[in-house]
Amino acid sequence: MDELIRPKVVILSQGDEVITGAIVDTNAAVLADHCRTLGFDVVRHMTVADDLDELVKVMREIDALADICLCTGGLGPTQDDLTVEAFASAFSKELLFDDEALRMMSEYFAKMNAEMAAVNRKQAYLPESATRIDNYWGTAPGFIDEGNTCRFYFMPGVPYEMNEMVQATVLADLQNHFEVDVPSLVTFRILGMGESSIQQLVNGIDIADDIRVSFRAGLPEIELKLLFPNSYDDALIQHWVDKIEAVLGHCVFAIDGLGHSVKNIADCVDQLMTEKQMSLNLLETLSKGDVSRQCHADWLVRSIIYPHPDDILLQYKTQQQTVSESLAIEIAQHELANTDTAISLVQLFDRVEDNKVTVYLAVVSKHYQRSMSQVIKGRGHRQQLIASSTTFNFLRKYLLDL
Amino acid sequence: MDELIRPKVVILSQGDEVITGAIVDTNAAVLADHCRTLGFDVVRHMTVADDLDELVKVMREIDALADICLCTGGLGPTQDDLTVEAFASAFSKELLFDDEALRMMSEYFAKMNAEMAAVNRKQAYLPESATRIDNYWGTAPGFIDEGNTCRFYFMPGVPYEMNEMVQATVLADLQNHFEVDVPSLVTFRILGMGESSIQQLVNGIDIADDIRVSFRAGLPEIELKLLFPNSYDDALIQHWVDKIEAVLGHCVFAIDGLGHSVKNIADCVDQLMTEKQMSLNLLETLSKGDVSRQCHADWLVRSIIYPHPDDILLQYKTQQQTVSESLAIEIAQHELANTDTAISLVQLFDRVEDNKVTVYLAVVSKHYQRSMSQVIKGRGHRQQLIASSTTFNFLRKYLLDL
Repeated sequence: MDELIRPKVVILSQGDEVITGAIVDTNAAVLADHCRTLGFDVVRHMTVADDLDELVKVMREIDALADICLCTGGLGPTQDDLTVEAFASAFSKELLFDDEALRMMSEYFAKMNAEMAAVNRKQAYLPESATRIDNYWGTAPGFIDEGNTCRFYFMPGVPYEMNEMVQATVLADLQNHFEVDVPSLVTFRILGMGESSIQQLVNGIDIADDIRVSFRAGLPEIELKLLFPNSYDDALIQHWVDKIEAVLGHCVFAIDGLGHSVKNIADCVDQLMTEKQMSLNLLETLSKGDVSRQCHADWLVRSIIYPHPDDILLQYKTQQQTVSESLAIEIAQHELANTDTAISLVQLFDRVEDNKVTVYLAVVSKHYQRSMSQVIKGRGHRQQLIASSTTFNFLRKYLLDL
Repeated sequence: MDELIRPKVVILSQGDEVITGAIVDTNAAVLADHCRTLGFDVVRHMTVADDLDELVKVMREIDALADICLCTGGLGPTQDDLTVEAFASAFSKELLFDDEALRMMSEYFAKMNAEMAAVNRKQAYLPESATRIDNYWGTAPGFIDEGNTCRFYFMPGVPYEMNEMVQATVLADLQNHFEVDVPSLVTFRILGMGESSIQQLVNGIDIADDIRVSFRAGLPEIELKLLFPNSYDDALIQHWVDKIEAVLGHCVFAIDGLGHSVKNIADCVDQLMTEKQMSLNLLETLSKGDVSRQCHADWLVRSIIYPHPDDILLQYKTQQQTVSESLAIEIAQHELANTDTAISLVQLFDRVEDNKVTVYLAVVSKHYQRSMSQVIKGRGHRQQLIASSTTFNFLRKYLLDL
């Protein structure tokens, strides 16, 4: 699409857990996504075991192949953590003891009220020419260093630590060291529509060839990404965004990349609750706490979970005999009257078949109430997740109209 | 470790969605797990984009490196599906039209009530020397063929089709073609002890050189894995397992691989609750529903969540002025008296500093009560996860003593 040469990136994951399939490598996808946003070209992902010879060999191969290597894993204190040793051996680097790294580790252990084991000292050895990447979220420092022609970034394999390090240090260093043609990325976050339906609707618009369209299907959120080449006209970007929003309609709950950013539907609701200074009282059934755990304690006052809707009929001594939207409203009103919150939200459900339920939602405040029902199919865990996101989306729409 | 030579496997995933991070590569983990079970040695995972030159290059590299290549993706009908072409080009194979493959595809489309597009014909071209892998679950046939020294297995990238093909054809072919040495894997699941402390304690035991030791650090669970060579003496496996269990003590909540299997601490509690036919009433605070959502509806009767402990002091009209273990017991007893469950579990907390809280837990049944407190440090989300697993572990120990 663009004429500029884009830096080539190899993503290297290491560790027995990944190579043996004991864990799925989510780090590689996260890093690849960052690279795309930066306008870099990921040419390979590679994963190798905790094996010194193999690591040395693969690092040399990457050095010959790419401009940038983003490497995760192998920085821990144990005997199977061999990254530093392998890098030093691959490019004939001396290892030096880094006092500051040791000091930070000691501080981290003190903060955690834990004793630092002798084996942790190993983690303070870094290649002589390396720039340490401070780790405030765990023990292992990361580091940046040059091979022969490739710039290597070493980060811990723990996704949380890796992510924090990327945000705090790695992205900035990548941008400083590599001049790139940064494309503009716009992400539509979508709920309540399948990937193929979205594809079909998007196919109906004749999107310009220089815009790259891609999908990322989660459960149940789906992302539609538009990647516009560098210095694409802002008005033209807005033109395409409007066109897509028009065909996808109310299924789009957020559009990221035009000055806005939300992480997911829970984050979207959090922003609205905070902005409107609301407080919430919640009753969950099918989602069994999955809504509550994602609510912020600043505005979630209380939540009750009844995994079995029958227990609710007993508890609320209602005259209604079955679970329904009107029962959900009755309970929400009852809860609102008995607590000191601005909004009361109730989720009920009724099992139709083994893999099919109807969810009933009601949300009530002093002046305004709303309810809905929806059929959810699939197995238990899937039902739980869809119930959870449907509840958040229902609350989002209510808040927007408030 | 063992004397037998284990076949070397490279797992190759291809496709723009994987390389750009648009999707997480779960196929690689699934295939790697099969290889471990078969006793094969996965030496690398590699992922490349839909680029012909790159594919040819990487297939030749793999041929030189491994005995087996398990490849997913790139078998579809569109212009960016280049696997067959790349393999033919890498090893100078002719492509032949496979009538049977076309017949099966036509049949599949007929079954789906869909018309077969002209582009699908492309999928019936296979290398002259290939053995077709029938696909009853989608359109693209897979195939098995030899490079120069490596046996290649090509499968679709759609996880469902890939899985079915592996079960129906690939596993049997692998077992027929490669004589292997199947190792035994034992996994210790650990809570309440850090990775480096575990390493230190394990270092204290002089574990035999032929046993491979590895770690997997989660938040907050940690796994310690022992891989024993094929036909290792059962009594000797038990000897080492006992030794390790002895040093790690009560932090081990499960040992997988000796006929037992649990997924995590919630699964462990689920097995105990079911076995003992218990029912639970729960009050959560800090974990904000993260315990409830992992409880099974078969035994979780009701759960209440108060994100703010102060609201509990008001709600329960207790004479106690502060949050404490004894308050947790008082509330648990109150809840037990007012509900029809066998066990009542209460989790309270007290904020010491911004990033430091004390959690108080009490569990009560008719005949037996227990309580504990624990300091948890770190940021909000970390506190929530640790509170959750600590609560499950507390309940687990209670159930074991019941």
